[in-house]
Amino acid sequence: MTYGCIASMKTRPGFREEVVSLLLSAADGLRDAGCELYVVGLSEDDETTIWVTEVWRTREDHDASLELPAAKDAIGRAMPMLTGEFTKQEMSVAGGLGL
Amino acid sequence: MTYGCIASMKTRPGFREEVVSLLLSAADGLRDAGCELYVVGLSEDDETTIWVTEVWRTREDHDASLELPAAKDAIGRAMPMLTGEFTKQEMSVAGGLGL
Repeated sequence: MTYGCIASMKTRPGFREEVVSLLLSAADGLRDAGCELYVVGLSEDDETTIWVTEVWRTREDHDASLELPAAKDAIGRAMPMLTGEFTKQEMSVAGGLGL
Repeated sequence: MTYGCIASMKTRPGFREEVVSLLLSAADGLRDAGCELYVVGLSEDDETTIWVTEVWRTREDHDASLELPAAKDAIGRAMPMLTGEFTKQEMSVAGGLGL
């Protein structure tokens, strides 16, 4: 089964849209890196939480992607806008629609 | 923006595969009901948690889908295998890859 993860992060007040733009700009090279799915969503519970669901061919592809220059650049630019509160759920993806 | 939700549920020990099969069998009719994405994953943290990420054209489409006969049937069959522990995160989907 493919590897998936569901992550959340919190931004400093007023920076959510900018972080979302950064996350989406980094999506361009993901397919070549082994990413099958990448969904960026804004929590409706508050004004600062972002949820990201990802599906990758393998966990190794996911881990390696974090070392890509574009990813490192996006992470470096996003970090100052984040509070440091993260959650992460890892999963084996069984299937669904749109994969 | 489209509507998304990330939900988790816990099964009674030994029933996770069966509930996953039920969830996947219900996926067939989802696209016609307005679903753009539906990912079913098994948590790697334990043997009983299931994570479901969904993206829908609208929240109303999502809510209406729960009233479809196939969905009601799947829910009815899954319920006895679940512990009743659920989480649900709603979000506005900004974009990504594979949508």
